[in-house]
Amino acid sequence: MLTLLKQAVLEANLALPGLGLVKYTWGNVSARDQATGLMVIKPSGLSYDQMKAEDMVVLDPAGKVVEGSLKPSSDTPTHLAFYAAFPEVGGIVHTHSPEATAWAQAGLDIPLYGTTHADHFAGPIPCARPLIDAEIQGEYERNTGLVMVDTIRERGLQVLHIPAMLCANHGCFAWGRDAREAVMNAGVLEEVARMARYTRQIRPDAPPAPNELRDKHFFRKHGEQAYYGQN
Amino acid sequence: MLTLLKQAVLEANLALPGLGLVKYTWGNVSARDQATGLMVIKPSGLSYDQMKAEDMVVLDPAGKVVEGSLKPSSDTPTHLAFYAAFPEVGGIVHTHSPEATAWAQAGLDIPLYGTTHADHFAGPIPCARPLIDAEIQGEYERNTGLVMVDTIRERGLQVLHIPAMLCANHGCFAWGRDAREAVMNAGVLEEVARMARYTRQIRPDAPPAPNELRDKHFFRKHGEQAYYGQN
Amino acid sequence: MLTLLKQAVLEANLALPGLGLVKYTWGNVSARDQATGLMVIKPSGLSYDQMKAEDMVVLDPAGKVVEGSLKPSSDTPTHLAFYAAFPEVGGIVHTHSPEATAWAQAGLDIPLYGTTHADHFAGPIPCARPLIDAEIQGEYERNTGLVMVDTIRERGLQVLHIPAMLCANHGCFAWGRDAREAVMNAGVLEEVARMARYTRQIRPDAPPAPNELRDKHFFRKHGEQAYYGQN
Amino acid sequence: MLTLLKQAVLEANLALPGLGLVKYTWGNVSARDQATGLMVIKPSGLSYDQMKAEDMVVLDPAGKVVEGSLKPSSDTPTHLAFYAAFPEVGGIVHTHSPEATAWAQAGLDIPLYGTTHADHFAGPIPCARPLIDAEIQGEYERNTGLVMVDTIRERGLQVLHIPAMLCANHGCFAWGRDAREAVMNAGVLEEVARMARYTRQIRPDAPPAPNELRDKHFFRKHGEQAYYGQN
Repeated sequence: MLTLLKQAVLEANLALPGLGLVKYTWGNVSARDQATGLMVIKPSGLSYDQMKAEDMVVLDPAGKVVEGSLKPSSDTPTHLAFYAAFPEVGGIVHTHSPEATAWAQAGLDIPLYGTTHADHFAGPIPCARPLIDAEIQGEYERNTGLVMVDTIRERGLQVLHIPAMLCANHGCFAWGRDAREAVMNAGVLEEVARMARYTRQIRPDAPPAPNELRDKHFFRKHGEQAYYGQN
Repeated sequence: MLTLLKQAVLEANLALPGLGLVKYTWGNVSARDQATGLMVIKPSGLSYDQMKAEDMVVLDPAGKVVEGSLKPSSDTPTHLAFYAAFPEVGGIVHTHSPEATAWAQAGLDIPLYGTTHADHFAGPIPCARPLIDAEIQGEYERNTGLVMVDTIRERGLQVLHIPAMLCANHGCFAWGRDAREAVMNAGVLEEVARMARYTRQIRPDAPPAPNELRDKHFFRKHGEQAYYGQN
Repeated sequence: MLTLLKQAVLEANLALPGLGLVKYTWGNVSARDQATGLMVIKPSGLSYDQMKAEDMVVLDPAGKVVEGSLKPSSDTPTHLAFYAAFPEVGGIVHTHSPEATAWAQAGLDIPLYGTTHADHFAGPIPCARPLIDAEIQGEYERNTGLVMVDTIRERGLQVLHIPAMLCANHGCFAWGRDAREAVMNAGVLEEVARMARYTRQIRPDAPPAPNELRDKHFFRKHGEQAYYGQN
Repeated sequence: MLTLLKQAVLEANLALPGLGLVKYTWGNVSARDQATGLMVIKPSGLSYDQMKAEDMVVLDPAGKVVEGSLKPSSDTPTHLAFYAAFPEVGGIVHTHSPEATAWAQAGLDIPLYGTTHADHFAGPIPCARPLIDAEIQGEYERNTGLVMVDTIRERGLQVLHIPAMLCANHGCFAWGRDAREAVMNAGVLEEVARMARYTRQIRPDAPPAPNELRDKHFFRKHGEQAYYGQN
């Protein structure tokens, strides 16, 4: 069942340490099969060198395990809540990559300081608000997803135009149309976070890039007017 | 004698450079055999590429060498003093890993800024007070251990809930139920220290994470209510 | 056509990731054949592991593709505008290398703090002014090149004496007499930018190095009086 | 002639890039044969992957080339001036390693913040004063060495107790009884400089470690009372 997608999810998980995004078991990738709506996710707490494609867990949108003998990632309800809100999302990555997590721990959006950022994200990377105690005591992982969904809606963002978010005092999520694109966005997020930290160190009051430059670079690579890359 | 434990201590020592925790001979790992109370520790000043399992030194709790032809690590009395105070500790790692050491040199606790920290440590990583001159002139290495023990007692900490400490103007120690767990905690400590430094750079007045979030993440992974990982 | 130059441009592009200057497809190198005036440049958005020498695109100075089936780098008009102004330049590199880009995002020149800088650049690395909206909406990539050319002329710089520039809110360019030298200068720029950031962190008001030291080091390595290296 | 020493100098030079101390050709190592007083040094501007033991240049204390067909390092007069002042020094390393160079560019001594530093250096790493214009215009490289010698004498330092120095706006030198020890000290210097930068970032007003701790650690490893390592 979903053999190819399991393989893709496995490979996406395995790519994370090599990209410097994950140490130990601090990350997980899921993907959604857009035909059936089923989600494939990494099992909980397994080390990356022992995971196999058949260890990936398959769940339905309600969170019921449809296939797999291992427990799914403890962050599964976050992934499910996010997929439920955004049908165009096909892959999600969660990491504690150090540069992005530092901004999450600081509780700040990552400003759009330049074109490296604008080539991939059409605005600042939002930092979702901290959960209140009742949200933590209740369905914590699901509430983490719901707060991210709210952040996107309240700010009026297009989910695939700013495909990453910070969670205050926690870590980061990135997504895309599939798992491979989500991993790419998680990697770019980390690099953009690093450059933003350096920028802030050199000049604490550096202003963001002009909106005109932001739009030029984002739409040079995305949408109908894009002219970057081969066709 | 204690062949398996010597092998484990050797492997734990050898893991340190690869994790970026140790350069040259700046670290040591010990483990205690809980059946006999004997401690196995790395010899002093030997380079990591020439150490063998049979070079590990075995000592009794009073510090008498029971087996081994080489001098034990000069930090041996620190390890002994710590084991004597905490029967549940089975492995100890000492390093000068740069991020943790920077906080030690700054003489500050590492604040609990987020869940990466809370997943492994149930509160700030304490920085033990500097030794006074008389403690340095006397049994310096033993006093280093005693000051760590005092820090845990004075602050009312559970030794396995915050399994690491900084020593002011010096370096850091991490521990666990065995050598492998101690190495893991030393690695997490370094990563947490790095993220905390980044956080502080981005926002010098960043507040710590809420207690509710701290407890949620720590007890999601530790204790009877844990639900992270496979069983 | 221009087989050797295509191979040189390919190798120069492939060198960038190994030097830590480029992630993903965030960079490009071109070279000019000084005999014919034709420019060879990397195709747009191709990943570095699939590029071959025959994929390199050949253009005339007006930007017409003379050979090659792929679209040239979207930054092609920047390269063309720069070559048009400076006949002595034979290779250009564009990257978003993180340390140099941080200074570009901060909108600041990199001060000449020491001899590592002075050995390769005869003064501060300039940061070109941000483009105005009309320049962005018009021929954006060409205007990027023209603003760099203006910066060199307005400041009265010799193009091969300070062979690199930052573009505000964007990234950096480096150049040389050929592609190989341009790559070298891009690598030195990144290292100099890193050291300058560190310097500024340690001492925010650090003054630049004395002019006498700057000239001594630059002309020890460049020009008729050079005495560094073998003949 | 001096075949073994040439091999040692070659190996010491080749070790520098792997330790992260040297990029391109930005470093050099020399050693002195204590029996004859002859110095062996790396040739100028040669890339590290093409150097062979027989390329090393042999000079007498007056700077006359005794053997070797290549030009010696342009920093040769610095090395000669330093050896002339301190007979106990048998090896010298010059680098622009980024962390140490950042302190040199800031024009500041590296404070002794902790025991990693004190284990190898018995006090702050001095930053030698900038050369005045006349010193730069004259025998620049020789004057660089003389200013280092003056710094040691004026501060009353024992040359092997603080075996490294920063040169303002330039880079750093480290030394030892032989080339191998000099390389080790250059590596420790870089690590100590890194930790000091981190410390200063976390706590800009961090005080240095107490003198008692400094002496304890330095003399635990050096001199007659040393008890670190095997005999």
